Amino acid sequence: MLMSKLVGERTKTSPADAVIKSHALMIRAGYMKLVSNGIWSLAMPAQRIAQKIENIIREEMNAIEGQECMFPVVMPREMWEESGRYSSIGDEMVRFKDRNGRDLVLGMTHEEAAVQFARDAVNSYQQLPFMIYQIQTKFRDEGRARGGLIRVREFKMKDAYSFHINQDDLEKYYYRAYDAYDRIFKRIGMKNFIAVQSDSGMMGGKISHEFMLLTDVGEDTLVLCPECGYKSNMEVATSVVENYADDEELPLEEVYTADAKDIAEVTKYLGDMPAYKTVKAVCYNVKGDSETTVVCFVRGDLEVNEAKLKKVIRKEVVPAGLEGSALVAGNIGCLGIEKIPNVITVYDASLKGANNMVTGANKEEYHIKNLSFNRDMNVKEFYDIAKVVEGARCSVCGKPLKLQNGIEIGNIFQLGTKYTESMGMTVLNQEGKAINPIMGCYGIGVGRAIASVAEESADEKGLNWPMAIAPWHVYLCALRTDDPIVKEKAEKLYADLQAAGVEVIYDDRNASAGFKFSDCDLMGIPIRVVISPRSIANDNIEVQLRDGSYKDNVNLDESVSKIKELINARI
Amino acid sequence: MLMSKLVGERTKTSPADAVIKSHALMIRAGYMKLVSNGIWSLAMPAQRIAQKIENIIREEMNAIEGQECMFPVVMPREMWEESGRYSSIGDEMVRFKDRNGRDLVLGMTHEEAAVQFARDAVNSYQQLPFMIYQIQTKFRDEGRARGGLIRVREFKMKDAYSFHINQDDLEKYYYRAYDAYDRIFKRIGMKNFIAVQSDSGMMGGKISHEFMLLTDVGEDTLVLCPECGYKSNMEVATSVVENYADDEELPLEEVYTADAKDIAEVTKYLGDMPAYKTVKAVCYNVKGDSETTVVCFVRGDLEVNEAKLKKVIRKEVVPAGLEGSALVAGNIGCLGIEKIPNVITVYDASLKGANNMVTGANKEEYHIKNLSFNRDMNVKEFYDIAKVVEGARCSVCGKPLKLQNGIEIGNIFQLGTKYTESMGMTVLNQEGKAINPIMGCYGIGVGRAIASVAEESADEKGLNWPMAIAPWHVYLCALRTDDPIVKEKAEKLYADLQAAGVEVIYDDRNASAGFKFSDCDLMGIPIRVVISPRSIANDNIEVQLRDGSYKDNVNLDESVSKIKELINARI
Repeated sequence: MLMSKLVGERTKTSPADAVIKSHALMIRAGYMKLVSNGIWSLAMPAQRIAQKIENIIREEMNAIEGQECMFPVVMPREMWEESGRYSSIGDEMVRFKDRNGRDLVLGMTHEEAAVQFARDAVNSYQQLPFMIYQIQTKFRDEGRARGGLIRVREFKMKDAYSFHINQDDLEKYYYRAYDAYDRIFKRIGMKNFIAVQSDSGMMGGKISHEFMLLTDVGEDTLVLCPECGYKSNMEVATSVVENYADDEELPLEEVYTADAKDIAEVTKYLGDMPAYKTVKAVCYNVKGDSETTVVCFVRGDLEVNEAKLKKVIRKEVVPAGLEGSALVAGNIGCLGIEKIPNVITVYDASLKGANNMVTGANKEEYHIKNLSFNRDMNVKEFYDIAKVVEGARCSVCGKPLKLQNGIEIGNIFQLGTKYTESMGMTVLNQEGKAINPIMGCYGIGVGRAIASVAEESADEKGLNWPMAIAPWHVYLCALRTDDPIVKEKAEKLYADLQAAGVEVIYDDRNASAGFKFSDCDLMGIPIRVVISPRSIANDNIEVQLRDGSYKDNVNLDESVSKIKELINARI
Repeated sequence: MLMSKLVGERTKTSPADAVIKSHALMIRAGYMKLVSNGIWSLAMPAQRIAQKIENIIREEMNAIEGQECMFPVVMPREMWEESGRYSSIGDEMVRFKDRNGRDLVLGMTHEEAAVQFARDAVNSYQQLPFMIYQIQTKFRDEGRARGGLIRVREFKMKDAYSFHINQDDLEKYYYRAYDAYDRIFKRIGMKNFIAVQSDSGMMGGKISHEFMLLTDVGEDTLVLCPECGYKSNMEVATSVVENYADDEELPLEEVYTADAKDIAEVTKYLGDMPAYKTVKAVCYNVKGDSETTVVCFVRGDLEVNEAKLKKVIRKEVVPAGLEGSALVAGNIGCLGIEKIPNVITVYDASLKGANNMVTGANKEEYHIKNLSFNRDMNVKEFYDIAKVVEGARCSVCGKPLKLQNGIEIGNIFQLGTKYTESMGMTVLNQEGKAINPIMGCYGIGVGRAIASVAEESADEKGLNWPMAIAPWHVYLCALRTDDPIVKEKAEKLYADLQAAGVEVIYDDRNASAGFKFSDCDLMGIPIRVVISPRSIANDNIEVQLRDGSYKDNVNLDESVSKIKELINARI
């Protein structure tokens, strides 16, 4: 490829809305162009990276007997009604009508399509297990697209679906897929990634893992135990619940707290008392029902984990608006809350047995002191609905937990029979009995993988692609292209490298060395080769690796083999 | 791949709605599954064919300096308003709103996306020419999906866009693309295809070609001159217009024709007079305007060419409903039609100078005889709006034309500046003046290419893929898999072939020879290899080509190299 013809503008300034490195650099290097919120066009170098990642994914999926298929982007409502997800999935699924008024959706995941595809074709246990997958465009009407390719609305994804005769067989395959994922992320050049337990959310199953790139800009929070290796997404993470109680229970007391509303204000007003001696109230509405308020009580030093809460109440929640309710924002408390209409309460396990606690008085400007859960309350059940905090004790080994941000780069789910049951897929087992196959599903977003590698590998000079996925292996800089000898030697080397299977982008522009070097660094091509009047005077070219690990003058005659050696050692 | 695990049901019976061979066979061979009208899932073998075709396309596009990009499926309304196509394209473009009420569309073509992508990045004539392309999913809400993958709603397409400083440069590139298309279709194994001039339709340009596979099941009609090589799509085809007039003009006469309405009935009623002595009236409405009727008059032996009509009146038309109009269906005639309100007339060139013609009397049960266009009518202009008929004289060489059906397998358009002008893309030319680049665009549908090859190559036994795009090169049949020696030898050959880079599907099922051979033939794998107790007794395997051109017993030790030789000679 010639740099003079490559479409994609390189710029020195970062776009104002790019808050993370990979986003800013991929725009600055001309890799992509925004089309609409969360919708991008990829330029040639980005598309080349995508293809290399797709090919690595494909090889590893084929290695675990995956059958590559292609399901449609557009699907009929009826198929999603069979699974029940036409109504259970919210605004993130695009719904529209065709010219004949039939309801269609844009696929954001393809369990329905996979089952519809396989259910008539597979009838016997002898055909199991099998795995079908695709690498295909999806659309999710994401409310908060951000970070360039990290969180988008339209994305390319590898999604795989496996079918099994029993749970044992699924688990065996599930861990093969787990290992394949590990190989994929290593091969595309990610370094600092882990797999953590995760929440199955709308997918329907029980056991699931997310593969996470550890990075401060990640928007997921991971809970890690450095001691025993416990790893979990915050959404499902647990820690040892510590319950505190004073030896002496003091009498209940109503205290004036003026306009102190949140925990910080209340503890300060009451003489800098510790937050863990307070009860925090957090209010939600069940999605689609603004009448009823779900009031969650957690200890004042903790936060509510919405994913856990959803599992307890088995409903989607949204932050509550309290207008029209009888609740007094900032003064909501446990004592007497049962008298307030249209309220559901959920108590966190951290409050069990607690005493001498401060809680809202359910009236303006007052709180209650010295609440004792054993003495004053009649809570039927306490649930684990709190977020794990840094330093909390690991529920496996008891040692302090660490929090770490991460980007989700892949996920694997054990789905169970949710889809095969609802969509009526059966096979005959060895005893001739019709059973619903057990499914697993396995996803990797291609664009997010690109952005994640970019985020991890980039430096202050620009992008820095691992050899295995770099758009080109070599950036060939000809300095002084007006010098006919330089031009001739450069064009010959360009041709020789291509003939040897090396992927080269040739900077044939009539521009300064600094300009070319800066584009090369910004674009992140792993090997820079410089031909200049000075170098060819010695029959040499200058070869250096973008990561600084190699730099030398190489004789022109040996240059192709030297460059191939550098590439092969890194793929 | 193991046949025992391949997902995809093979059946003996054709689906009732499959009227063409490729459609029926691809379903019978388990290659694809219907999801909704015009929307398909592709099974592994079909997806493998698609990928091979895509790779051939990719190689040929890269060979003419194409830069592979990826534009989005979902695009914002605003971009399509810039080009004016948000309103000019009809129901076939899907429009929907996102969760925030913003209007989006599903891409059915990507001129807008290509210009939006390139316009900021390209500023100078030095960056021209360039070509950007993608291979991507599109959706067109096709009213008459049919023929399996021949005409669908969701489809994968290679679409390419080139940008040029002037018309000369576009034309040079256009014919390079033309040649690349020729190579692509040859490489994917099509035999009987041609390029014809075509109608640019909604694309906006002037010169365009369609690549057509010649086949009786094609729904396009092509006009070919065996003498001079003139080739055209019926939509734009012309022939010499023959005007007939009798020497003696007879007086006008109103005749009773009872309930004779169409040309056949009227000519019969009037004593088997020739159709070319009648005037046929064909009525349309301009799309979106049911008030006005466009009445086309052509000679009774001809048909109206709607594509030509649209160009004359510069509007989309739909067949007219005559309810509520003052026109008398079946008795519409030229004489006096100007007195009927809300009518626009268009006269075909075949009527120029005609005399002694029969035309409707514009009242029930009557026609007019002996109309003379020169004497009785005052037609300002005659237009060429008639379809060319078999045997009409070639407008180039005057020899008789032939009609032939074809399937459109690709198209190339010279677009001009329609998009760069409307979307404000300019570059500075050598004189420093801002000009709108001139565009070309180039499309190939991947699914239709699969179906077209299938249609051309299939025989009575099933599909019959050319080696270059076959899902696997070899179908390895082990007969008597219960024989441990057969099993061992077959598994070894399976492994050896794969190690040698041969793509094999191994029929490991415990089934009869006839059952396996019939699946092999139905699936259309080019090389069948049979291992049986009898063959291995002689240390042999049986190797034969699906097309019958080779069949031999090959020594096991030489089998891999022999099979590789058969493959390499055919790719």
